[in-house]
Amino acid sequence: MSDSADFPELMTRDLPDGMRLVRGGVTAAHGYRAGSVSCGIKSDEGTPDLAMFAADHPCVTVGTFTTSRTPSHTVILCREHLAATGQHAQAVVVNSGNANCANGERGKRDAERMAELTGAKLGIDPNLVMVSSTGIIGRPLPMDKVERGIASVQLASDGGDTFAQGIITTDTRVKTVAVEFTVGGRSVRLGGSTKGAGMIYPNMATMLCYITTDLALDPAFAQSALRSAVADSFNMICVDGDMSTNDTVLLFANGLAENTPLANGVDGAETFAAALRYVTRYLAREIARDGEGATRLMTVQVMGAASDADARRVARAVTASPLWQCAVAGGDPNWGRVMAAVGASGAEVDPDKVAITLGKVNIVRNGVATDYDQAAAKQAVGGTEVLVDVDLGLGAYTATAWGCDLTHGYIDENTTYTR
Amino acid sequence: MSDSADFPELMTRDLPDGMRLVRGGVTAAHGYRAGSVSCGIKSDEGTPDLAMFAADHPCVTVGTFTTSRTPSHTVILCREHLAATGQHAQAVVVNSGNANCANGERGKRDAERMAELTGAKLGIDPNLVMVSSTGIIGRPLPMDKVERGIASVQLASDGGDTFAQGIITTDTRVKTVAVEFTVGGRSVRLGGSTKGAGMIYPNMATMLCYITTDLALDPAFAQSALRSAVADSFNMICVDGDMSTNDTVLLFANGLAENTPLANGVDGAETFAAALRYVTRYLAREIARDGEGATRLMTVQVMGAASDADARRVARAVTASPLWQCAVAGGDPNWGRVMAAVGASGAEVDPDKVAITLGKVNIVRNGVATDYDQAAAKQAVGGTEVLVDVDLGLGAYTATAWGCDLTHGYIDENTTYTR
Repeated sequence: MSDSADFPELMTRDLPDGMRLVRGGVTAAHGYRAGSVSCGIKSDEGTPDLAMFAADHPCVTVGTFTTSRTPSHTVILCREHLAATGQHAQAVVVNSGNANCANGERGKRDAERMAELTGAKLGIDPNLVMVSSTGIIGRPLPMDKVERGIASVQLASDGGDTFAQGIITTDTRVKTVAVEFTVGGRSVRLGGSTKGAGMIYPNMATMLCYITTDLALDPAFAQSALRSAVADSFNMICVDGDMSTNDTVLLFANGLAENTPLANGVDGAETFAAALRYVTRYLAREIARDGEGATRLMTVQVMGAASDADARRVARAVTASPLWQCAVAGGDPNWGRVMAAVGASGAEVDPDKVAITLGKVNIVRNGVATDYDQAAAKQAVGGTEVLVDVDLGLGAYTATAWGCDLTHGYIDENTTYTR
Repeated sequence: MSDSADFPELMTRDLPDGMRLVRGGVTAAHGYRAGSVSCGIKSDEGTPDLAMFAADHPCVTVGTFTTSRTPSHTVILCREHLAATGQHAQAVVVNSGNANCANGERGKRDAERMAELTGAKLGIDPNLVMVSSTGIIGRPLPMDKVERGIASVQLASDGGDTFAQGIITTDTRVKTVAVEFTVGGRSVRLGGSTKGAGMIYPNMATMLCYITTDLALDPAFAQSALRSAVADSFNMICVDGDMSTNDTVLLFANGLAENTPLANGVDGAETFAAALRYVTRYLAREIARDGEGATRLMTVQVMGAASDADARRVARAVTASPLWQCAVAGGDPNWGRVMAAVGASGAEVDPDKVAITLGKVNIVRNGVATDYDQAAAKQAVGGTEVLVDVDLGLGAYTATAWGCDLTHGYIDENTTYTR
């Protein structure tokens, strides 16, 4: 058993009381096996590009998906399968390197074929299989390679880290977290992995996230808890203002803990919601920190907004301003760009009430610059983490968003992606 | 007198029948004088940073301004002066290098002082002076330098080009155009200059634009014609998704042509509207082409949309996608990013009906890739102009937006702007 000292500070930060970090990602909870394999979908030899996990039993499964009007064939399949099974699933198969989007009838057939092959391998109904794809849009899946991958991938009860490796694309590192806590006297776990990097805004981005637990959950409660957690995590991160066709967050609950299924008012429901909130916010922040080309994590905290929607608008507008992102890249405390983003956000703003603080340096009060220490201000935007606090001075609503700086690395990553 | 052969193709393109290009910008029309001077607001020695123009008589004057909730003190002053004079003005004073935004009471006083000094210099009511500022936000104007600039700037009836030089900031070239046409048997002129570069989206951007004519215009008609022209020009360009605090478009009409003031139904009103549309669209396209770091002008034409709003949404979403902007920079015909932007735009989209054409190469039909020529597709995104046609196949609405690619140059321009 590990303790918090074995984990990085970014992971212990905001960990709810009474919870303990554990390893294993999607296999941290009992009753899940996972793995990944390289089958040649990606051009880089040997990089894992097909990942899978399976539960020993059908799980209550809920998801949130991209709001794009051109969703991938796999997103459409997931929605259809969850509707057909009444919110149940038992396995996930993911390929990276190809988005299987905008491939017409063939794309639809290929997504279904991935579910069928996975179902056959595991001996389960294909409707219990969720399918995800991420990568280039508009190229047919190389199904011979995908079939070989599904046939050869090995699942293991400690395969969570291998799974996490298999779902990433331009990410520079895996993003995994899991916690252990107690519900009704039983020790239970919740863990997950995500992939992100570019296209992370305004709604979930090209990001895939899979979360598992051994708790029993009421499906309606699970859906509402996931929606609420996603609203404060994956929907509050921005790398570049683009939204993807493939965004997917899935939560699996296999019920092995044999607790009374959690629902509103049931003991443990709030503890579970806090764990889910911690896990999704940690993973979302990790995506922002690992944005394409990013060198600094930006956290924008808005307070004093006249409404919840306004607080979110302002927080997201600041993270999404390319001009401010460039200033952060240059370690330049050019706060006027924060002010411009606040004003352009569409939120109710009284310029004479705005306060802006970078790190611990109060730069703007009542809408005008304070006599702040220039060197301290530069230092506040010069490290690996940049904290921007905006107080609108109008009401009681708050929001937090995460983003990153905009650098040459982002451009390099994205000028020749299809070559 | 010059003919079209003396002007670049980008200027003769879309020139309405019966109109002729002339030189002179804001002084092309009779009765205007203009100039600029270097007074040290900008750090680069000798760069013009204070510009002015004046009409011989009070003009009907209408404007459109930023919708930011944190507008600059100068934008607030322009609105107040136009309200006080019932839509009349006689001069404009512009400083570049400092936005005079978020400077509190001092910013307000400084803007008023600029109007007073200009009024005194010209011997006119300060309420007839429009004031603009562009540059860094949140630093007080160096009023000693501004005063020296206002005192020393020389106005001349051929000073339009000098004026155009004085208003630019990170622009790599001046942006000026003027046309001559006939209304009621009289030869009249309409000309203008703009500055742009970064922060060009979603509503007018850090851009300033001044247009003058010797026509007589009814104020309500002038306002509505300007609003309509801006909607199809400056509001349809995108460099980086940021909106500025200082955006201003002003139209001055001194009435020297002694025509019946143009209003809806009056002979010549449509000709004037066509000229205004041409001038604003040309200037807007020039801003996009000269976006910070831009190497390619992107024109996105949307057709087949279910509504006018949807057509605009889609056109703007494609120009505003950083991922697609990066692909264009790399000459990479990665059309999946166009598809993703279309899907994420919020417009009604049926993926199976979407067609995408790059240059003359039809890449996507009925939502899936055609068997297109890869080399031709690369060529279509490899030149100084990239044309993207998106047919949604749903309705009769169309829209055009302009943007540019996203390059290292943009990052370089914006990482250390305040230093």
